[in-house]
Amino acid sequence: MSVAAEFETANKQYAAQFTHGDLPLPPGRKVLVVTCMDARIDPARALGLREGDAHVVRNAGGRAAEALRSVVISQQLLGTREIILIHHTDCGMLTFSDEVLRGKIRADLGEDADHIAFLPFGDLAQSVRDDVALLKRSGLVLDVPVTGYIYDVKTGTITKV
Amino acid sequence: MSVAAEFETANKQYAAQFTHGDLPLPPGRKVLVVTCMDARIDPARALGLREGDAHVVRNAGGRAAEALRSVVISQQLLGTREIILIHHTDCGMLTFSDEVLRGKIRADLGEDADHIAFLPFGDLAQSVRDDVALLKRSGLVLDVPVTGYIYDVKTGTITKV
Repeated sequence: MSVAAEFETANKQYAAQFTHGDLPLPPGRKVLVVTCMDARIDPARALGLREGDAHVVRNAGGRAAEALRSVVISQQLLGTREIILIHHTDCGMLTFSDEVLRGKIRADLGEDADHIAFLPFGDLAQSVRDDVALLKRSGLVLDVPVTGYIYDVKTGTITKV
Repeated sequence: MSVAAEFETANKQYAAQFTHGDLPLPPGRKVLVVTCMDARIDPARALGLREGDAHVVRNAGGRAAEALRSVVISQQLLGTREIILIHHTDCGMLTFSDEVLRGKIRADLGEDADHIAFLPFGDLAQSVRDDVALLKRSGLVLDVPVTGYIYDVKTGTITKV
């Protein structure tokens, strides 16, 4: 069975118990979370989010540069006024370089990915500081609280950077 | 209290009951989900995901063009072999145009956002078809199953497009 079919089955159970169909579009807690796509992170469970609470942006690494489009839409059109940025231990982004990944793509797929910045990083805490700084200094982002954390995949704990 | 402080409190409860600190980095179910940042969507609950199961990429609209960097990393370095793309009813991306948002940013922030494609759409089902097609035709994406859905925020149900 494809995972798609498994998701359809699981979703039938979710929809059967669904009780929050009247939630408004703007996030109730006026907050946007940026974090990694990593499978071990469940932002809702880890941060106590319920449906309707928060925008959640996720990408490889939880990189702010890529999240910027979403942050602008979230603030300008949907009223969020706080940003939480979370990177994590044992992140895949610590394991490669643009050069290595571009070479693998050239060898395996025969494609040129030289135009893509894959945004890996070598220092986890520094990556959080860099991304918080990017959001704080961008003229496209409102002057709102931006707090950066590291999530420990072995303990489930967030620690402020 | 800032939302950050509320998250820290909620996270202490999560970490106190944390029992899956030994999960591997690659997603167990070898699947990547792309969906919107919308606050009303909880991909884990709606699709029956547990920590460790799936990469989850989220951005304003759940747009594939922006997810491409993450998809390549997920497939090339972390072994995922299926993609699920989910857009949803009542999406904020149906409510504006690049011109309108750029004008608002110019008026309110005094900044030029003409270099940013905010990726709004006018037709929800077509946006799913377009994004599935983008992933299927990209030479950077492996030839794997890509399934597109619409999530109904009033019922919690996913429907294949």
